[in-house]
Amino acid sequence: MPVNLSAPDPKALYPVAGVALGIAEAGIRKANRKDLLVMRLDEGARVAGVFTRNRFCAAPVIVAREHLSGGADAIRALVINTGNANAGTGEPGIAAARETCDAVAQLIDCRATQVLPFSTGVIIEPLPVERIVAGLPRCIANLKSDAWAEAAEAIMTTDTVPKAVSARFPIAGRSITITGIAKGAGMIRPNMATMLGFIATDARVSRALVGKAASYAAERSFNCITVDGDTSTNDSFVLIATGRADAPEISSETSPAYHAFRDAVTNVAMRLAQAIVRDGEGATKFITVRVEGGRDPGECRQVAYSIAHSPLVKTAFFASDPNLGRILAAVGNAGITDLESDKVDLYLDEVLVAKNGGRYPGYEESEGQRVMKQSEITVRVVLGRGRAEAVVWTCDLSHDYVSINADYRS
Amino acid sequence: MPVNLSAPDPKALYPVAGVALGIAEAGIRKANRKDLLVMRLDEGARVAGVFTRNRFCAAPVIVAREHLSGGADAIRALVINTGNANAGTGEPGIAAARETCDAVAQLIDCRATQVLPFSTGVIIEPLPVERIVAGLPRCIANLKSDAWAEAAEAIMTTDTVPKAVSARFPIAGRSITITGIAKGAGMIRPNMATMLGFIATDARVSRALVGKAASYAAERSFNCITVDGDTSTNDSFVLIATGRADAPEISSETSPAYHAFRDAVTNVAMRLAQAIVRDGEGATKFITVRVEGGRDPGECRQVAYSIAHSPLVKTAFFASDPNLGRILAAVGNAGITDLESDKVDLYLDEVLVAKNGGRYPGYEESEGQRVMKQSEITVRVVLGRGRAEAVVWTCDLSHDYVSINADYRS
Repeated sequence: MPVNLSAPDPKALYPVAGVALGIAEAGIRKANRKDLLVMRLDEGARVAGVFTRNRFCAAPVIVAREHLSGGADAIRALVINTGNANAGTGEPGIAAARETCDAVAQLIDCRATQVLPFSTGVIIEPLPVERIVAGLPRCIANLKSDAWAEAAEAIMTTDTVPKAVSARFPIAGRSITITGIAKGAGMIRPNMATMLGFIATDARVSRALVGKAASYAAERSFNCITVDGDTSTNDSFVLIATGRADAPEISSETSPAYHAFRDAVTNVAMRLAQAIVRDGEGATKFITVRVEGGRDPGECRQVAYSIAHSPLVKTAFFASDPNLGRILAAVGNAGITDLESDKVDLYLDEVLVAKNGGRYPGYEESEGQRVMKQSEITVRVVLGRGRAEAVVWTCDLSHDYVSINADYRS
Repeated sequence: MPVNLSAPDPKALYPVAGVALGIAEAGIRKANRKDLLVMRLDEGARVAGVFTRNRFCAAPVIVAREHLSGGADAIRALVINTGNANAGTGEPGIAAARETCDAVAQLIDCRATQVLPFSTGVIIEPLPVERIVAGLPRCIANLKSDAWAEAAEAIMTTDTVPKAVSARFPIAGRSITITGIAKGAGMIRPNMATMLGFIATDARVSRALVGKAASYAAERSFNCITVDGDTSTNDSFVLIATGRADAPEISSETSPAYHAFRDAVTNVAMRLAQAIVRDGEGATKFITVRVEGGRDPGECRQVAYSIAHSPLVKTAFFASDPNLGRILAAVGNAGITDLESDKVDLYLDEVLVAKNGGRYPGYEESEGQRVMKQSEITVRVVLGRGRAEAVVWTCDLSHDYVSINADYRS
């Protein structure tokens, strides 16, 4: 049961000029299920991508990286399938990803290197590329600009709700649109980007700044979430700027327009990333872990992830049990070898639980219990060694996580 | 339900000359439960300890380290309580640990610094030292040499069976006895030693070599296991050599006698460590993760732990589902940035699943399925970058893990 998450209202998702979406049921793994999406881009769109750092990166990630390096403003289409990750598939997997790009290129009349492939689903099984190729003409026949809600649905795997966010913001007095979709619920600990995230905007932005904005946004959104600590083989986040808005081009990194653009992209990315955590496999609670007072953001993040990944902390949240010593143990277990535990404070929302490394004398367990019962909780750890901070969003570990992952392929 | 683990037969546990054990029900957390143990050592015993590297190390760990540094051959008693870890308790926790040592010292007529305190249980709650002090005279009144089975029971928390191992081996034609107990089922990812492990032998061993043997054994036993990746605040492993056996002193690190001693200690420690994994919270399977072909043992261990800690891998084992791409994803996610995935092979027992980073063409899922159904499984990963190797023992992640940790304090 997702935490305060409902399907996006299709009427609230603005089309992005220059982007058309086509969906099909290709029967890749299961019948009667939307599992294939083509995003066709008008000429001139600028595209940037950030990808998984898992060393077993999937075949489509390898091919997409290669095609992107050929020219970020030449990309004409993205093709995304669910049901099979095309990872751990060796050379045949690479060939299957290329064959998919070929098929799309023939249908929309461009070169295969102008197509980016993405896959998500089971790892190590051969990609049924013939079903994808057979489904593509139906995607192309269905291309339309107002299919973002359907597109969000087409990329779901264990997700219980589609994830899509839309926003408008002004640049030089003109309204800019930005719409994104994402998928992911398990194998979520992005190390560059999330499972799959696609954000498009009609803003006109220089090629370099599309890339910078993509990295900036990923660092503050998809790279700050974890469900189970397992970095996927297929993580990809793509930012598309079609340049179709009637507004001046953004080409200076110091301009107010770039900052407005970057912040709007980051905000949409953050909302998509948080939606992934709220829909985390089996999640019943949304947890914000904020670590302050570190020497640098890296060590704050290290402590935050140690808390967010601890199965003992996560099951305590599931049980609404203020067994908060587990959080201190996770702080001590974060690998900061010169941490002084007697300088550490721990808060649950506004409740001070531990002061200088020990239980705060004024702490009442009933107060901890009250906060633990909430469906949204902030853990705040103050390390007392500097001024840096970091935030990580995560969820609890429930029976349903075990059930979902024990039954996933059956 | 533990994996192939039954309670030790008390008759198979040999007393160790120079060690007496006394147990009491002190009502520390729950009534009618053995929760307090005193191990009294005759004069002249040599004691070495290795302790948690969690930065939030517990008060008893701080005090035990301090007392050990005063002289490893002066220790006269160990006192161990369950029900409360005395961790995250600040200065009052240290005072409580000292008060416990004082009380033992008065009862057996030694100095408080000759007593080592150990605690295990809930973190961050004040230690009810008055109940411990009140229970100690009953421990002392019960001291006897053949109470190892009862002692193993007295140190249990979420353990479902007591863990004790006994062995005899010859040195210079004389029989040496070695008996150990351990506890632990959750918060298990020892980074120096396990939750609590105590091994005693009547061998006569020099002070330096007791320490060396303790580290050597810990490195090959308690430091190779993980249940949930959470390094505890209280991990402690103590090796006691009473010197009461009628055999020559072992004082040379290169002597055959030292090697026999060291290997016997390691074997007992390994069996205790494996017993902890078999009794891992909710465990239904015992998994050996063997990583070979690495550049050094450190990176092999890193890969092994990445597999052993992956919730997705662990739930697949629980489900007996050969969803083996999850293991490749965990290998890629181990942080070895220059790993070449196309050199990696994966075996499940003797079944070759992936060759050169991709699914092995001859692999049949029915073969993977057959192995996954077993209660004991070996995962073997060959990295193809060198000759080093490492082994880690772990268990699966089941519904019962979530239940046990959601309900632990209730």
